[in-house]
Amino acid sequence: MLAENLLAGRTRNMGASAIREILKVVSRPGTISLAGGIPAPRSFPMAIIEKITEAVLQKFGSEAFQYGLTEGFPPLREALAAYLETKGIVATPEQILISTGSQGVLDGLGKILISPGDRVALEAPTYLGALQAFTPYEPRYVQIDTDDQGMLPDALDAALARHSVKFIYMVPNFQNPTGRTLPMKRRLAVAEIIQRHGTLLVEDDPYGDLRYGGALIAPIKTLAPEHVVYVSTLSKVFAPGLRMGFCLAPDLVRHWLVLAKQGVDLHTSTFDQALAAEYLSGGHLARHLPKIIELYRPRQQAMLVAMERFFPHSFSWTRPDGGMFVWVQGPMGLDMEAVNRTAVDRGTAFVPGTFFFAHPGEGKETLRLNYTMADEATLTRAIEILGEVFDEALTGFQKGMSSAFRSSSMVSARC
Amino acid sequence: MLAENLLAGRTRNMGASAIREILKVVSRPGTISLAGGIPAPRSFPMAIIEKITEAVLQKFGSEAFQYGLTEGFPPLREALAAYLETKGIVATPEQILISTGSQGVLDGLGKILISPGDRVALEAPTYLGALQAFTPYEPRYVQIDTDDQGMLPDALDAALARHSVKFIYMVPNFQNPTGRTLPMKRRLAVAEIIQRHGTLLVEDDPYGDLRYGGALIAPIKTLAPEHVVYVSTLSKVFAPGLRMGFCLAPDLVRHWLVLAKQGVDLHTSTFDQALAAEYLSGGHLARHLPKIIELYRPRQQAMLVAMERFFPHSFSWTRPDGGMFVWVQGPMGLDMEAVNRTAVDRGTAFVPGTFFFAHPGEGKETLRLNYTMADEATLTRAIEILGEVFDEALTGFQKGMSSAFRSSSMVSARC
Repeated sequence: MLAENLLAGRTRNMGASAIREILKVVSRPGTISLAGGIPAPRSFPMAIIEKITEAVLQKFGSEAFQYGLTEGFPPLREALAAYLETKGIVATPEQILISTGSQGVLDGLGKILISPGDRVALEAPTYLGALQAFTPYEPRYVQIDTDDQGMLPDALDAALARHSVKFIYMVPNFQNPTGRTLPMKRRLAVAEIIQRHGTLLVEDDPYGDLRYGGALIAPIKTLAPEHVVYVSTLSKVFAPGLRMGFCLAPDLVRHWLVLAKQGVDLHTSTFDQALAAEYLSGGHLARHLPKIIELYRPRQQAMLVAMERFFPHSFSWTRPDGGMFVWVQGPMGLDMEAVNRTAVDRGTAFVPGTFFFAHPGEGKETLRLNYTMADEATLTRAIEILGEVFDEALTGFQKGMSSAFRSSSMVSARC
Repeated sequence: MLAENLLAGRTRNMGASAIREILKVVSRPGTISLAGGIPAPRSFPMAIIEKITEAVLQKFGSEAFQYGLTEGFPPLREALAAYLETKGIVATPEQILISTGSQGVLDGLGKILISPGDRVALEAPTYLGALQAFTPYEPRYVQIDTDDQGMLPDALDAALARHSVKFIYMVPNFQNPTGRTLPMKRRLAVAEIIQRHGTLLVEDDPYGDLRYGGALIAPIKTLAPEHVVYVSTLSKVFAPGLRMGFCLAPDLVRHWLVLAKQGVDLHTSTFDQALAAEYLSGGHLARHLPKIIELYRPRQQAMLVAMERFFPHSFSWTRPDGGMFVWVQGPMGLDMEAVNRTAVDRGTAFVPGTFFFAHPGEGKETLRLNYTMADEATLTRAIEILGEVFDEALTGFQKGMSSAFRSSSMVSARC
């Protein structure tokens, strides 16, 4: 027998993720899942990948398979500097740090910044993977209120005045889970606030390139470069399986991120970095991205049209200009975990929104829908089923005949 | 300005690695470096890689580029189960966890097991990367004495009787930095000791396959399966740049390692895992490994012959049956950091052994030599230069004319 108390104190916080259990259930054949958060395999540039794989073997040979710098493969850092310039971000290759998925940056930030009990501010709701990265380092979370345009600057300012916060975590473009985008006016306000308070902002931007309408809004990194860690990934515009993330951080933060990364994985796969370098520098991203957008835009459109048609009037939802998600709010008190169980029995599924809140029990009446993994007809059918399930849940809920769909705890107003 | 006290308490422990600075200096053209710890690019199976890259694209298509299970790509876990069987280790594919380099397992173990102040026992000297993985979690290290056959079981037993230890970390085959291998008799003793004390052993085995003579010695994992996390990597027998590590842990430990990994990188590169699966299941490793051994064996041989010829009589060193390193001990009081600076000026370099001790300041009279990165003639020339540098250092040291090579602090006996 191994000794009791084998585990570290922090480990008790790494609870099994309920969302993982949901994703397991809905992966069974015949289920139309709107629960996932993953890109369509059809969006992967397979023909390009064949070509660049050959090119990398030719061009770099054994160098692409050798140990490399913790900071990243130089040709990829060069290519990313050029890529970031298209977003208005000025960076030298040396300032860019490559990571194993953007998850690697989030873990590294948690490791070098969070002492147990330190405060981290984030949107309510927020990205689940960020919570999974930060929580093992035992922070206290400060939730900042949001509306349909994302984080409320006044709420952020008030929170920073009340608490000393290690950093703020935010997804300003097509947020996961809500699809919301922070408008320019709020970005300017956030930039002013973080500079005034001397607070670090982690600006996570995995979805920015998946824009189906409207114009690019400048990253907050361009407005307060010394106070922002800009984090992104090629997962949504190249291939997620390659785990290719990166960040552009103030020098002090980058210095420690590199040392932390050395202890975590030494460096990110050289071969995968070489493929990514070739994808960017060969102009393949620029040519392929419009195809990804033309795949997703009609899917999102079909889902939104079906939602108008089939969802109850008491439901409201976001209509994002891009990304992969729509966020739905039902009437207060409705328990979307129970509703989802019924939906799964009928052959479709979503993620109950409560999982995306740092404070347990909030957002029980909310849910997240994904539209990248199914075609238009399938999405329409799934939304029709969900509409029926919602109608039934509402009927039971309003008549008070059944408590099955009623949230057992009080729910605070969100959204 | 960012706020002061931005960094977490643990971050002060992640000091810049002196060894990194040495490796930077010695990478300049014209220097013959025996300081590195990396495989020869010539050992990489480039022709096989071209073939299996094509095969993976054909066989798995977009699946090789999609998000995958945190636990690992199923075909790789199957292939590794078969591979481990050749070492006498019985494992189902489900028990194997893939990691981003074996470094990923070490970081994960630190995260789930070490609370600040917890004790970790390790060989003196030990693998530097393990210290870099564990140290951010703020353990106290208990150094266990070693001799030319590796860790002393009596010393381990005494340490476990004295202290409560979270786990023991050990490299039993061709250890980095010493090249030493723990004989079967000691493995049996260690297996008995850890079972009696209920202590977890982390058995790190990156070099086991690089055996140039003698017969396989069974892993400790086969002797005490419920008390051992067996960790290994394909870095030395396939390609290090692919960052392909794995472990076989008791169920409780694996459960938490998976949850920790989810927060760190979600999963290891699917494409790289698919390449590794194909390398193993296609029988390529079995065919290619003898070629790697035939590359390294004469290099080691040439270096050992030159050491006999050129090194002072007061120096002693290991004569490993495999791996990548030879460990050298000079006379007590000689400061190998100073000696290395002179060696670098003469165009060759090693790693001073003091960097491999958990407790600073120990092992100042020791050093590590690597022989995988240079051919026989170059190694002979480098050893001749080192012999001259050592002779000069000894002359100055013995005459007491110069304190340049004298270690400034007392040095405890190690070996």
